[in-house]
Amino acid sequence: MKTIGVGVIGTAFMGKAHSIAYAAAGSVFGDALRPRLEIICDYNPERAEVMRTEMGFSRCTSNWMDVVNDPEVQLISVCVPNSLHKEISVAALKLGKHVWCEKPMSTNLADSEAMLAAAQASKAQTILGYNYTQNPAVQSARELIEEGAIGRVIGFHGIYDVDNEADPDRPHSWRMNREASGSGANADVMCHLVSMAHYMTGSSITRLVGDYDTVHKERTDPQNPSQTLPVDNDDVCTALAHFESGIKGTLRVSRVAWGRKCGLSWEIHGSQGMICHDQERLNEIKLYTRSDDPRQEGFKTILSGPAQPPYDAFLPNAGHSLGFIDVKVCELKHLLDSIETGKPVWPNFEDGLKIERVMDAIDRSAMTGQWLDV
Amino acid sequence: MKTIGVGVIGTAFMGKAHSIAYAAAGSVFGDALRPRLEIICDYNPERAEVMRTEMGFSRCTSNWMDVVNDPEVQLISVCVPNSLHKEISVAALKLGKHVWCEKPMSTNLADSEAMLAAAQASKAQTILGYNYTQNPAVQSARELIEEGAIGRVIGFHGIYDVDNEADPDRPHSWRMNREASGSGANADVMCHLVSMAHYMTGSSITRLVGDYDTVHKERTDPQNPSQTLPVDNDDVCTALAHFESGIKGTLRVSRVAWGRKCGLSWEIHGSQGMICHDQERLNEIKLYTRSDDPRQEGFKTILSGPAQPPYDAFLPNAGHSLGFIDVKVCELKHLLDSIETGKPVWPNFEDGLKIERVMDAIDRSAMTGQWLDV
Amino acid sequence: MKTIGVGVIGTAFMGKAHSIAYAAAGSVFGDALRPRLEIICDYNPERAEVMRTEMGFSRCTSNWMDVVNDPEVQLISVCVPNSLHKEISVAALKLGKHVWCEKPMSTNLADSEAMLAAAQASKAQTILGYNYTQNPAVQSARELIEEGAIGRVIGFHGIYDVDNEADPDRPHSWRMNREASGSGANADVMCHLVSMAHYMTGSSITRLVGDYDTVHKERTDPQNPSQTLPVDNDDVCTALAHFESGIKGTLRVSRVAWGRKCGLSWEIHGSQGMICHDQERLNEIKLYTRSDDPRQEGFKTILSGPAQPPYDAFLPNAGHSLGFIDVKVCELKHLLDSIETGKPVWPNFEDGLKIERVMDAIDRSAMTGQWLDV
Amino acid sequence: MKTIGVGVIGTAFMGKAHSIAYAAAGSVFGDALRPRLEIICDYNPERAEVMRTEMGFSRCTSNWMDVVNDPEVQLISVCVPNSLHKEISVAALKLGKHVWCEKPMSTNLADSEAMLAAAQASKAQTILGYNYTQNPAVQSARELIEEGAIGRVIGFHGIYDVDNEADPDRPHSWRMNREASGSGANADVMCHLVSMAHYMTGSSITRLVGDYDTVHKERTDPQNPSQTLPVDNDDVCTALAHFESGIKGTLRVSRVAWGRKCGLSWEIHGSQGMICHDQERLNEIKLYTRSDDPRQEGFKTILSGPAQPPYDAFLPNAGHSLGFIDVKVCELKHLLDSIETGKPVWPNFEDGLKIERVMDAIDRSAMTGQWLDV
Repeated sequence: MKTIGVGVIGTAFMGKAHSIAYAAAGSVFGDALRPRLEIICDYNPERAEVMRTEMGFSRCTSNWMDVVNDPEVQLISVCVPNSLHKEISVAALKLGKHVWCEKPMSTNLADSEAMLAAAQASKAQTILGYNYTQNPAVQSARELIEEGAIGRVIGFHGIYDVDNEADPDRPHSWRMNREASGSGANADVMCHLVSMAHYMTGSSITRLVGDYDTVHKERTDPQNPSQTLPVDNDDVCTALAHFESGIKGTLRVSRVAWGRKCGLSWEIHGSQGMICHDQERLNEIKLYTRSDDPRQEGFKTILSGPAQPPYDAFLPNAGHSLGFIDVKVCELKHLLDSIETGKPVWPNFEDGLKIERVMDAIDRSAMTGQWLDV
Repeated sequence: MKTIGVGVIGTAFMGKAHSIAYAAAGSVFGDALRPRLEIICDYNPERAEVMRTEMGFSRCTSNWMDVVNDPEVQLISVCVPNSLHKEISVAALKLGKHVWCEKPMSTNLADSEAMLAAAQASKAQTILGYNYTQNPAVQSARELIEEGAIGRVIGFHGIYDVDNEADPDRPHSWRMNREASGSGANADVMCHLVSMAHYMTGSSITRLVGDYDTVHKERTDPQNPSQTLPVDNDDVCTALAHFESGIKGTLRVSRVAWGRKCGLSWEIHGSQGMICHDQERLNEIKLYTRSDDPRQEGFKTILSGPAQPPYDAFLPNAGHSLGFIDVKVCELKHLLDSIETGKPVWPNFEDGLKIERVMDAIDRSAMTGQWLDV
Repeated sequence: MKTIGVGVIGTAFMGKAHSIAYAAAGSVFGDALRPRLEIICDYNPERAEVMRTEMGFSRCTSNWMDVVNDPEVQLISVCVPNSLHKEISVAALKLGKHVWCEKPMSTNLADSEAMLAAAQASKAQTILGYNYTQNPAVQSARELIEEGAIGRVIGFHGIYDVDNEADPDRPHSWRMNREASGSGANADVMCHLVSMAHYMTGSSITRLVGDYDTVHKERTDPQNPSQTLPVDNDDVCTALAHFESGIKGTLRVSRVAWGRKCGLSWEIHGSQGMICHDQERLNEIKLYTRSDDPRQEGFKTILSGPAQPPYDAFLPNAGHSLGFIDVKVCELKHLLDSIETGKPVWPNFEDGLKIERVMDAIDRSAMTGQWLDV
Repeated sequence: MKTIGVGVIGTAFMGKAHSIAYAAAGSVFGDALRPRLEIICDYNPERAEVMRTEMGFSRCTSNWMDVVNDPEVQLISVCVPNSLHKEISVAALKLGKHVWCEKPMSTNLADSEAMLAAAQASKAQTILGYNYTQNPAVQSARELIEEGAIGRVIGFHGIYDVDNEADPDRPHSWRMNREASGSGANADVMCHLVSMAHYMTGSSITRLVGDYDTVHKERTDPQNPSQTLPVDNDDVCTALAHFESGIKGTLRVSRVAWGRKCGLSWEIHGSQGMICHDQERLNEIKLYTRSDDPRQEGFKTILSGPAQPPYDAFLPNAGHSLGFIDVKVCELKHLLDSIETGKPVWPNFEDGLKIERVMDAIDRSAMTGQWLDV
């Protein structure tokens, strides 16, 4: 059994999710490359030690350089704030270490380009944590599309609504300030939708017009609750898009959409059918294909099952449901396979940069009111 | 019991639907103004006579002027091709006759403006057949919104997908030729969606950017099946929109969306909740409002019922379902009430012209790639 | 155009529904036998006159014998309390008049048997108002089953839950007294479910064990609100059933099921598939058939459409939705066809008696705790 | 950090699921009692070694006694065929070791009683793997019920349909032989449903009448495909049930229900509302409570979220979805808590025996056609 030493930098939700995935991957996939949990890093040494114990790592540190430089470590999870992605990823790649970096890629195109350059100069593999594309049901949908189940792809339409900031009484935060965080819903939420658009169509967005809306224009100043601070980035972000393949589509995201907890839904329109998905029902795919008998025409609700690998590594029967963390384990599996075979995995840093360029173009278009090339 | 003489011009699906509505309204609403089915018109005299008999009218004609001039007729249904709407409506309004005109209003803004001018010069009432807004469940949703159930309206997002032309093997028709029919999905399908956007928000679209896609660019020439003819209008039409009230939204329609039979769905985002509807389940409204207990937060599925007038005129219990034609009868009821009270009904010709201007602006924007004022 | 004179006895909800159906049938079906609305009866002469006007009948009466004896009337709607069904139906049938009788057939087997005897002695046609079986979507489902779409039928499982009496604070009524009304949910609700079981399976229940539950055992005395009266019939009624064809099934109904407004749902299990329906979504059928590709296995949601006659007489496109009253019009159409062709329609009085016998057997079984033959 | 040594006996799906849960629990729950993966057992020594490596255990064996006797092991997973549950469990309990035993408890009441006796004589904790009751969403539903959200519980109705044996062309197996395996769907599937009935109502079934159906009465002999063998146990099992608390309910399971992959669905009827669940959408609860406004009455769809502990240990936001294996981890968490606190967990062997008695009574009732006490 081959193993690989792993290190995790960052211990918030995603750091924990990566750690759980590393711990589970061996049991789930059996004979695959097996992660060894070597070292975990949090800038707070006490928390680092707590998380080392809880997550089951051998060592811990408060200095991310220790992880990058650890000779036992070949694969590094980058689960820190977006502004640190570049420095860590580049350092790791320079040492030939594989990088599993959370999304979005970074906070600006220059950083993302530097990350891609480092990846291209390295033999190591990279992957970005656009986990919704790693769902076996979604990957099965793409497989069906590639096999022609819905004919030629003619359109992509996607939505990603969440209600994280829906409450007008939530106080102001750095996320609501353009200078501090760049765009709002575009940066935070749109990136997932663009990853899905690119993945499902097998193409990239090349031209678009975007629009922003700041719905709640003032929020309470948390330091001074009797006053408000302006929100100057987007609560809602929308775009009309053209793809390299010639198809067109629409994108819409909101961080203020009451009731949507993980409302990533999309439709692929085809010349002979349609396929749809809603992340809040991640174990279901809707498929419409034509029928000779109009009495039998309708959308099928297809439950996840072992015909959608690697579902079969988790569960032997359909309809038993994978969860969010299982999908993160699938993501890891695809990266481990990539490391073993040397073949790139989607979305590596090259794919990621294409996604970043779309958000950047939406931002520029929303600011200028122009159709723009990506 | 007061009655009103009615005449129907046109005997295709909508002429039949109006006729059924006229026959049913008396029984359904009991003491309301009761239609007398006086005269029906089809340009083919033989079909006119057949339809007279079948639909239960007293007289028939092949000349629409006979309907307009009939002294027993005070209310006229205009159910003919769109290019004839203006001439008939103007003639009827000049004689002080009420007009129930099918959608869209006409084929160009000049005609629609002439129709509005005639309506403004007349004491008669007008209504356009944007029937999806007349659904008691939808009207109840609007009532809830006006009462503040979801707080302040912050966004409208709507889709209307159908698969009428989805089959690439359907031959070419006049509908697919811009010169013959103007825009495609924009003219045929978008008008319904815009009517819903205006109705549900209580506001109008004032600025937008639109886009077209012709998915199936060639279709078989029905006269010469070995050859194809170009399709030069839109199969798909999308827009980003700003409303007079300050909110923003998105619109998307397609006539080539496999599996969608009457796929008019929309969401009203509010500062304190959300409300959604899907015309394929016309008896259901989805409502999300905030809860103090996160364990009890979720979208409610509300079934149509007698608390949504005039559902109660049809059925005494909730969950028993109205159909498309019942909604058409509701539309008629609102017009009859308007005639009795002298108060305008939504959407009259003034409301209709606002809808037409949106489609016109989408068309210009899609052609020029510019954000445009409506 | 052939016409038929009709009379309606009873003017509550069902009397009104029959009247609307008579008024609409001509317009909807065009060249079919066309009802002439001759006479309507209510025991209250003033209401009879009001309903005559509102419903559009030529005459009215407060004596049902006048309807039965009216020489212009060939078809009689029996929409009065169940205890009167026998006397009227028998009188009408003796005069050779067709009878459209609301469900259930009567209040006891002896009456139902007398009704069947009268029907057998007459050349007239009969139909009972088990309208949920007349839904074109449901009839299409049965057609698919008969064609073998789900293989051999292997089981029927049905539920009919309503919340009419769910509120424990609703006062006592005659419906809750066994002496006054016989069984409760069994008589009121189960009959619909049994009609569906018989219709969909093409077979009859022949043996069963039943159970009753009185959930709210005391209710406020409406005459004396400080006191309560006992409820001594069933709020909930359940049964395990064997069918003549050899299959088995389950039946469950409740009148105290909060949230269910018209919760009639059923599943037909087949050796090669399954088909399901929920009356609260009356325009949808769920169909599962086997697939060679496990990635494409799932239940289809099939929308009502013109391939399900006589949907096509109402609407030219799928997904536009029929309503409860449209289905009542379909029921009438099937009766009118039966009158024209002389061929019996399902469920005539013979079919109805089989349904009555099931409720009777459930009642006896629930009282004795025995498996019983029907 | 406290740890506990664990051993797993059996390496099929459930052995693997327990192992994954042991590996994950530490990372997911952080400061809770942490499993140490000591020893795994398969009767095949080679597979035992493979699974040791893949699952990450320290030792392996082909003799289950080694696990029971291992001084490092305090908690033992019993994931072997049902007929071996008793011997292993009793041996482990005698040594004071905690037992996590897969469902059903055993193959006969005598064994189950012996298991309970051993548990009662031991200070160790026990739990049976009725995992569907351990879903945080389901447990939240129960909590809401206990708080009175739907008033007094008035009924339980449950279904568990699967299609494992739906294909008539599947060959005969020992599962289809009453002598070899006892009852069919009753033993395999009903136990889960009974566990849910007991858990959700907080009561036990005390009286019932049951029925069996063998739908596919002959199956191909796998040894001699030109011949068939009789199936003599139940494909379908149904029951009407009375509960200790006075409520009544229905139970229905099938192993031949095409399209149902994990079709465990149930409804709790209350005097003031209803709550429903479908295991194929394990992250959703449907809740109906009364409203003062009939325009806002409907079932809520509540997504799983952090207000449903221990969901919050997995994911910080609602709507992100747990999977089957996560629920197994929750089950383990409840057992670990029980071990730490010394308080029994549901369903321990006492609860399990009550479940077994229900299946036993259904079996006797189905054979004799009598209502029976459990």
